[in-house]
Amino acid sequence: MELSINRHGGTPIAQQVEASIRDWIETQGSGGGRRLPSIRRLAATHDISRNAVIEAYERLVAAGLVCSRRGSGFYVADSTASLVSQPSINGALEEVTNGLWGLFNANEHTLKLGCGWLPSHWREGDDLTHAIRHVARSSRAGIFEYSTPQGPLALRELIQERLRMLAVGVDAQQIVMTGGGSHSLDLIIRMLLEPGDVMFVESPGYYNLFGLLHLQRIRVIGVPRLADGPDIERLEQLLAEHRPKLFYINSVFHNPTGSTLTPAIAHRVLQLAEQHDFQIIEDDIYADFQHTPTSRLAALDGLNRVFYLGSFSKSLSSSLRVGFIATPPTLVQRLVDIKMLTSISASRFAEQVVIIMLQNGSYRKLTERLRTKLSNQMAMALTMLKKAGWEIYTEPAGGMFIWARPPSDISPERVSELAKQWEITLSPGHLFFADHQPTPWLRLNVAYMQDPRAKAFIEAVS
Amino acid sequence: MELSINRHGGTPIAQQVEASIRDWIETQGSGGGRRLPSIRRLAATHDISRNAVIEAYERLVAAGLVCSRRGSGFYVADSTASLVSQPSINGALEEVTNGLWGLFNANEHTLKLGCGWLPSHWREGDDLTHAIRHVARSSRAGIFEYSTPQGPLALRELIQERLRMLAVGVDAQQIVMTGGGSHSLDLIIRMLLEPGDVMFVESPGYYNLFGLLHLQRIRVIGVPRLADGPDIERLEQLLAEHRPKLFYINSVFHNPTGSTLTPAIAHRVLQLAEQHDFQIIEDDIYADFQHTPTSRLAALDGLNRVFYLGSFSKSLSSSLRVGFIATPPTLVQRLVDIKMLTSISASRFAEQVVIIMLQNGSYRKLTERLRTKLSNQMAMALTMLKKAGWEIYTEPAGGMFIWARPPSDISPERVSELAKQWEITLSPGHLFFADHQPTPWLRLNVAYMQDPRAKAFIEAVS
Repeated sequence: MELSINRHGGTPIAQQVEASIRDWIETQGSGGGRRLPSIRRLAATHDISRNAVIEAYERLVAAGLVCSRRGSGFYVADSTASLVSQPSINGALEEVTNGLWGLFNANEHTLKLGCGWLPSHWREGDDLTHAIRHVARSSRAGIFEYSTPQGPLALRELIQERLRMLAVGVDAQQIVMTGGGSHSLDLIIRMLLEPGDVMFVESPGYYNLFGLLHLQRIRVIGVPRLADGPDIERLEQLLAEHRPKLFYINSVFHNPTGSTLTPAIAHRVLQLAEQHDFQIIEDDIYADFQHTPTSRLAALDGLNRVFYLGSFSKSLSSSLRVGFIATPPTLVQRLVDIKMLTSISASRFAEQVVIIMLQNGSYRKLTERLRTKLSNQMAMALTMLKKAGWEIYTEPAGGMFIWARPPSDISPERVSELAKQWEITLSPGHLFFADHQPTPWLRLNVAYMQDPRAKAFIEAVS
Repeated sequence: MELSINRHGGTPIAQQVEASIRDWIETQGSGGGRRLPSIRRLAATHDISRNAVIEAYERLVAAGLVCSRRGSGFYVADSTASLVSQPSINGALEEVTNGLWGLFNANEHTLKLGCGWLPSHWREGDDLTHAIRHVARSSRAGIFEYSTPQGPLALRELIQERLRMLAVGVDAQQIVMTGGGSHSLDLIIRMLLEPGDVMFVESPGYYNLFGLLHLQRIRVIGVPRLADGPDIERLEQLLAEHRPKLFYINSVFHNPTGSTLTPAIAHRVLQLAEQHDFQIIEDDIYADFQHTPTSRLAALDGLNRVFYLGSFSKSLSSSLRVGFIATPPTLVQRLVDIKMLTSISASRFAEQVVIIMLQNGSYRKLTERLRTKLSNQMAMALTMLKKAGWEIYTEPAGGMFIWARPPSDISPERVSELAKQWEITLSPGHLFFADHQPTPWLRLNVAYMQDPRAKAFIEAVS
């Protein structure tokens, strides 16, 4: 099959692929059952992204022209097409999970310069160990029993207090405890989206989410992320073409660009959400790295259209698996039901440990120290990169991430080679784009950048 | 709309409902867009189960005759019906979650005679506290870092050893750590089933699973559970009518009947799985309550068609959230990918604690003591129930559960009244049936039955 693709027209590639296949099917007459080329092959032979092909196939499946058979591929539908459609998602899944696997499986002695968490030696053990021992000693229920499906009221009230400091007015009844940010996303997406629904994401953005959306067969549309938040002009254009149910936004210290939403953009996004009737997931898991609070969508909106996500994984411990969702009031019960049916409850022990640390002030002190440390590292990292001639996408006001590109005369292959030579694990930049477009940009974690290997690598790539 | 239902014919109610609605739609002519009665209303006016109505609507949706709109209900499809169907699941969800909520929200001073876990005062704290303190003191990674998505190899190797005692030959590479039994079920179901697929469950059986399957819009067919395992004759009949992808079985100390699968039935089930090409989830979360190992499906099958589920929630701690799946080799990677996309990893801390207790022998000693204690309680409970004239479905050889019914001259209303009077929380029996049929049978947990309130209640209901 030969597709006609025009890379320089205004029409999205996926739409062109769809139109081409549609034409081909029509010219073939009533050839139901005929097998179509695989996603991988179509993408390779026409040098387009797999995501564009997946989107095209998904639209054709939704239109009843194509059907998919698990593990086998896509076929031209009979006139009496099967109603249950299964776009193959394996390709897309693989790409994303390989990225994460790379980080998890990397030799533990490599420097994880591209990873999304703090290095172990940054973590401070004493207060956490103390809290753990306290719960182990004093709470039989804490070490033995199921938590409630929504999570302990005491913890939800402490979170309510903390959110007030961000001007997010929320009742403890609206807060649902989860096993961390990814679990929160999964619960909301399961509750609100059906296969074939459209969700907007930021691009570049959080890549584990892209994999999750493919798993759920959601159509993913990327909205460019600029230094002050999502690109509003492009968002408006995309809203003219698509009807998203959800839009996912990292408000503060965006992953991977490190940028922070301005009040004006936040306001505009909420206006558009109102006009076009979509809901928003505000993922704020880096909130506790911020010195002075800035505008949150949830604060402006009052948790009407916004789900606000928080987590203790980035600041306190990734091991405990404690996060939360502040939820529009009418959806709390359904969210808790889904959580209960899929996992009964989170860990009561871990929840109790977080309660202790919030109550005795040790969490506050810990995050104050982390903020100062991260600020220093950020300043040093920016200086180092500029000196080496790297381009910075936007200068982050804090947090862990810098989105940077090596000087343009160095090939991506050479960058990989040098990373290998200096025993450094990077997160490939294309994973952060909703359509996995190739890119020279890299996410760098400032907490690892004072390591001699990082310095040597940055200097070598210059 | 008036349905014609014959309760005494051989045709399942759901099928009759489907046929009636089909007739009605046809006699109305091409009335696309016409609203159909709600699940609740149809069930109430014809005194049939909601599940039967849901199943009927699901079949009609799959057949393209009916379409559903989220939050609004069911409508007669246009000839060009929407391909994305959304049977309303709220009704079914509510019924199940209310059951569990009842147990979680019950006043903590009531006696949870119907619940599925051991009472807090049965739990032994010293060894667990010791293990927790050990991990907190000695493992920075344990308290701070993400686990790997599959879970620590050391833990998977210890589980491999334990499974060898049950004659289940499995490699540590086939074991995937999870956050407990419900999480395991959710992962497998997401991996293997699509909306509209058929899954067989035991009836009575594990009710949280029924809710999960409704959430995923899986068609649930109940296979009667007898004293030696699933009813093979009925299973064969159902296999003539349906093509299930999965069958869920509790092999040992079945929830709620307490019965245990015999080798002959296990063998027969596996033969049928081969003939009819379905896979099996063997949920063995009560395994460690068993003195002398009996036949496991996974042992006979060699993890070819069987997923084997284990958990530390029932024996060691429900708070830690540690369970596992032993998986057919070809599906390990995909299962781990789904786990990673939806939760990154389980709690490394909790996994380390379990490693310590398996390594130092304290878990083995703990389960030995629990087994002895449960045996004694089981014997006393059976004596008590028989003396009071209760009927026992089958005498369990161990475990926590007895499936029993009060003497037949006592109305269910009176039983509820007496439970309330003695401050006892029961699990309503109808929740354990896939079609939520009314039943006088109750699940009793023997670990609570020596409480004076339980004794008074059992005697009063006689």
